[in-house]
Amino acid sequence: MNLDRFSSSFDQNRDRIVSQWMELLAFPSISTEPAHHRDCLACAEWLVRHLHSIGFDNARLLQTPGKPVVFAERPGRPGKPVVLFYGHYDVQPVDPVSEWRTPPFTPTLLDGRMRARGAQDNKGQHFYALKALETLIRDDRLQATVKIIIEGEEECGSHGISATMTEWRERLQADLLLITDIAMDGPRTPTITMGLRGLIHLTAELSGPLRDLHSGAHGGVAPNPALELPRLLATLHARDGVIAVPGFYDGVQPISPEEKVLALSMPFDPELYRRQTGVPPTGGERGRPVAERLGLRPCIDVNGIHAGFDGPGVKTIIPAKARAKLTARLAAGQDPALCLAALEAHLRQHAPEGLTLTIVEKGVGGPGFRLSPQSEWIARAAATLRGMYNTEPTRRWEGASIPVIAGLARVSGAEPLLVGFGLEEDSIHAPNESFALEQFRNGYLYVASLLAGL
Amino acid sequence: MNLDRFSSSFDQNRDRIVSQWMELLAFPSISTEPAHHRDCLACAEWLVRHLHSIGFDNARLLQTPGKPVVFAERPGRPGKPVVLFYGHYDVQPVDPVSEWRTPPFTPTLLDGRMRARGAQDNKGQHFYALKALETLIRDDRLQATVKIIIEGEEECGSHGISATMTEWRERLQADLLLITDIAMDGPRTPTITMGLRGLIHLTAELSGPLRDLHSGAHGGVAPNPALELPRLLATLHARDGVIAVPGFYDGVQPISPEEKVLALSMPFDPELYRRQTGVPPTGGERGRPVAERLGLRPCIDVNGIHAGFDGPGVKTIIPAKARAKLTARLAAGQDPALCLAALEAHLRQHAPEGLTLTIVEKGVGGPGFRLSPQSEWIARAAATLRGMYNTEPTRRWEGASIPVIAGLARVSGAEPLLVGFGLEEDSIHAPNESFALEQFRNGYLYVASLLAGL
Repeated sequence: MNLDRFSSSFDQNRDRIVSQWMELLAFPSISTEPAHHRDCLACAEWLVRHLHSIGFDNARLLQTPGKPVVFAERPGRPGKPVVLFYGHYDVQPVDPVSEWRTPPFTPTLLDGRMRARGAQDNKGQHFYALKALETLIRDDRLQATVKIIIEGEEECGSHGISATMTEWRERLQADLLLITDIAMDGPRTPTITMGLRGLIHLTAELSGPLRDLHSGAHGGVAPNPALELPRLLATLHARDGVIAVPGFYDGVQPISPEEKVLALSMPFDPELYRRQTGVPPTGGERGRPVAERLGLRPCIDVNGIHAGFDGPGVKTIIPAKARAKLTARLAAGQDPALCLAALEAHLRQHAPEGLTLTIVEKGVGGPGFRLSPQSEWIARAAATLRGMYNTEPTRRWEGASIPVIAGLARVSGAEPLLVGFGLEEDSIHAPNESFALEQFRNGYLYVASLLAGL
Repeated sequence: MNLDRFSSSFDQNRDRIVSQWMELLAFPSISTEPAHHRDCLACAEWLVRHLHSIGFDNARLLQTPGKPVVFAERPGRPGKPVVLFYGHYDVQPVDPVSEWRTPPFTPTLLDGRMRARGAQDNKGQHFYALKALETLIRDDRLQATVKIIIEGEEECGSHGISATMTEWRERLQADLLLITDIAMDGPRTPTITMGLRGLIHLTAELSGPLRDLHSGAHGGVAPNPALELPRLLATLHARDGVIAVPGFYDGVQPISPEEKVLALSMPFDPELYRRQTGVPPTGGERGRPVAERLGLRPCIDVNGIHAGFDGPGVKTIIPAKARAKLTARLAAGQDPALCLAALEAHLRQHAPEGLTLTIVEKGVGGPGFRLSPQSEWIARAAATLRGMYNTEPTRRWEGASIPVIAGLARVSGAEPLLVGFGLEEDSIHAPNESFALEQFRNGYLYVASLLAGL
């Protein structure tokens, strides 16, 4: 049995694999923070060396207008499929760093979990794939051609790879786009993802007062950025949670009757959701099933808002400025650039009298997309997962974004296959990110088994 | 001429006065920050010693449930009026401290301005009064009985003195409540204030998510505190800036026809306002004159709002919590406790589904009040100011609050006389607070001349 062989291979090499994984996690490769640019480069160079060591002789960096992309290619036997594996070596910021129980870039294996920023997203979830490839190459069981692309800007919009990938069209041609940067619904629920949402972002600032003004001497007269920015943000949604930005819904791919049925049939336990997240699933557009709101419909979120005083007690000021950071998740069919323009136009139209609205930053990630549930690759992945879990894998649509996937699928001609081993408990994007070694091992078994069969 | 004598007296003692003033300013007596409690006590003790040195032999600390109050009394001649002078030795916080060009508690006299937290509010504006009293006592020209009360919690609600002042009723009996903790409309515009607004404060927090949630995996499903708190705050006002909190306007003292005329006649230059503050006077209730919005009507302001990410780039989270700090200024006639209850009830009624609203802090300052424009003390102050400035003083209503004044007036039986020498350029409550030595000197001349005539 393949699975037994791969299991014992992993267990025999466990200490070495964990040690190498910790080396990779020690790089503070935070792509959104310019101060960590060098750390990102060092991380990319480590990956190139590592790929060389496991049998990808031509591993190298491809330059982009942003951070370089790690690329490697290993020819397989003629007539065998071409697999393009995608991952990213950059990670989210770590603030508030005071809430981390272990330092985010001092990887710590404790109680069976690797604790570090990136332990799961995405260093854990691409490193098990590399380890699976290492095993297949060493045992001479890899017949497919394998191409690897690991970018360094997934957490900030994938600008470099997006700007350059069309130049690499020949190099990227593939049959299967293998993606593991994704979660599963539960530890015993293997999950195949049939779509992702797109992403746009915008940072808005309201300013005007030359300095913080005394709220007694000016309250009721001076327009207050910390009062007006909330009022402006409140115009983004109607009372029922529907987005009130004109034109924002243009192009949203209609939900087919088959998808409607599938959405309603997807298992969802509101009480479990509340226990796992602390909140009931009452956000977004009222009256739609959770699976629709999460995977098939767009949403706008405030990721941060900051103005004025936040200490104990009272500080009677009208703050000089207020800033909000927004992201929107886009459904399949929406044009990200048009959505961003609609959002900006709405904010400008509703900007308060007397204050200045500045769009400090804005950017377009990839669009959303949805796949056919009938794909051949989905069938193969389902068979592999059935072998591992003895259960039929769940199909679902993912609410998150991998901005570059829609673009990579288009350029490579490959069909994206999205199966990963993340769990809610991993706290990705939050303090104390971690990844169970057991899930890392499952990812390894999945990739090895899937590719061994090609 | 009195003025000439006091002028030369000040100029002869200038260096000593400035040096003593700098000693007072060096205490970081920030009453809202528990870490500075000892600094507040040290400042109060310094004032007691200083009052002894200028002729108040019984100067001492009066204990309260909060910070102690500096009290001193010097009997005058029989039949002469009793003057109660009020000031405060506490100051506002100094954040963001990085924006200060000189350290806030290293007083620096530069280009004729004293730069320090408290340089004006209120250490500058009470210290010139003490120096005027020193001169009058030294020259044996003080015939009135003078009582001095300098509290240590004005910037955080005056709780200690408010809780205790009724016990001191006998001690505080007076004819005139002399207050200099106030601004004038311009450097050549002596100003008599006929009213102050009241103050309440409240800190609201929305929470729910156990941690920051991934905005892709949860956007459109999890209620977002950073999105819902702005929506909640937006319910506080109607589109025309009128407060939409039921019951909040109850009791607001009607504006008399005479006051309506006075409000419209008060000089106000919108362009000057914009140059001085950076904003046009477009806040508050639309359609009312500035003087009404500032002095005769209540307002609610957001002093700070904080949630989630504020760095460069993108962090795709649904923040675990969002917090807003609110203050409201109250018109004469409003009951602060009822206004606070109405505000809290409104927030609870509009709190979003799925999240938890917590009122982290709340408190009641004093009520607002308005005086008769016909007062005898106002006439005396006007005469003194005419002598100094050769112009008729402006009468106005002040938008700010001195929470304790309404209470002190009631307990002491004295009529409050509000004339001070603050200017907009002093940046009180903001970084780089300063006070022109010239204005300090004018305050000294005013107090000395006014009291010499009693």
